[in-house]
Amino acid sequence: MKLSARNQLAGTVVSVKRGAVMAEVVVRLEGGQEIVSAITVGSVEALGIKEGGKVYVVVKSTEVMIGVD
Amino acid sequence: MKLSARNQLAGTVVSVKRGAVMAEVVVRLEGGQEIVSAITVGSVEALGIKEGGKVYVVVKSTEVMIGVD
Amino acid sequence: MKLSARNQLAGTVVSVKRGAVMAEVVVRLEGGQEIVSAITVGSVEALGIKEGGKVYVVVKSTEVMIGVD
Amino acid sequence: MKLSARNQLAGTVVSVKRGAVMAEVVVRLEGGQEIVSAITVGSVEALGIKEGGKVYVVVKSTEVMIGVD
Amino acid sequence: MKLSARNQLAGTVVSVKRGAVMAEVVVRLEGGQEIVSAITVGSVEALGIKEGGKVYVVVKSTEVMIGVD
Amino acid sequence: MKLSARNQLAGTVVSVKRGAVMAEVVVRLEGGQEIVSAITVGSVEALGIKEGGKVYVVVKSTEVMIGVD
Repeated sequence: MKLSARNQLAGTVVSVKRGAVMAEVVVRLEGGQEIVSAITVGSVEALGIKEGGKVYVVVKSTEVMIGVD
Repeated sequence: MKLSARNQLAGTVVSVKRGAVMAEVVVRLEGGQEIVSAITVGSVEALGIKEGGKVYVVVKSTEVMIGVD
Repeated sequence: MKLSARNQLAGTVVSVKRGAVMAEVVVRLEGGQEIVSAITVGSVEALGIKEGGKVYVVVKSTEVMIGVD
Repeated sequence: MKLSARNQLAGTVVSVKRGAVMAEVVVRLEGGQEIVSAITVGSVEALGIKEGGKVYVVVKSTEVMIGVD
Repeated sequence: MKLSARNQLAGTVVSVKRGAVMAEVVVRLEGGQEIVSAITVGSVEALGIKEGGKVYVVVKSTEVMIGVD
Repeated sequence: MKLSARNQLAGTVVSVKRGAVMAEVVVRLEGGQEIVSAITVGSVEALGIKEGGKVYVVVKSTEVMIGVD
């Protein structure tokens, strides 16, 4: 499936922390930056997300803010 | 102001397209990837966002999805 | 790509209205209900979304609210 | 209260899983599809959401993505 | 309908700016602060939102960030 | 950093409830209303958010809905 969300960056899972409902997944992008994602534990299990796995972080454009120093 | 949104990536504005209410800002990250942001025209003006400007893209963790091939 | 967003419902595009930056896409689900999506015009073009096309509406769980009468 | 969020689909609560802060509510729509919602435990309690209850799932249009095979 | 979104603040519409797809609604809260909302023009019309109207601004908890000086 | 998110309201932290991954922070605005925020525990720790602290609640305009009685 191709998705309308236009921001899709390749990376590697650094860590997965699970709570009862939500999980925190940290992904290192190819450029070296780290991205934190909060998704349901159900999604972590459905996709088999685990440390070292190759993934994409995906963000809808309307969710991206801009900051200026 | 320091922000709870944990994903803050430095980049340079590549383009700004303005509609009546919303604007689309494309930012090239330091790693070379491009990110698309949809914010209000009012924010573009308040922050003085323009081509070539140094900015950060900022995303709340709960807005980040994970994809797997 | 398989996506962590757990809500993916099949439907048919009923209409596409384009602004300068944002587009409104109305999708009729197989159950007959209509869903409205606001995405960028860039995404409409990248995916070739048009009336009558078969698509999925996709929503991250953290974006779904519950209402009670 | 009538709400600007244009996507409101009727359904029945299939399950409620509670964590310390967040809860996962699964709703079966009238068309048979299941929708997963992640809301706070405080909201589950305030609305009295429980298995078998009649509810609506509500989503703001800007949160709806489109996917294409 | 009672909604799981726990943040509901009363106010008065100060202005409505319409684009082709999106509209920007500014609401003055009872405490005097102004809030900007970007919703579809379709919602503005469906709810009859106009200057001087009494409304609520509604935000899901997972969309609220915290900033610290 | 100045942020494109146009809604930034000053307040005081009333309570912080921590789960394994997510935390719920309640903030009392200067006008007296209370706002609930669901952010990661990692953000609570990174910003040193605690009861009695002075903070801002920050919301992107595209996340703000409007309700009418």
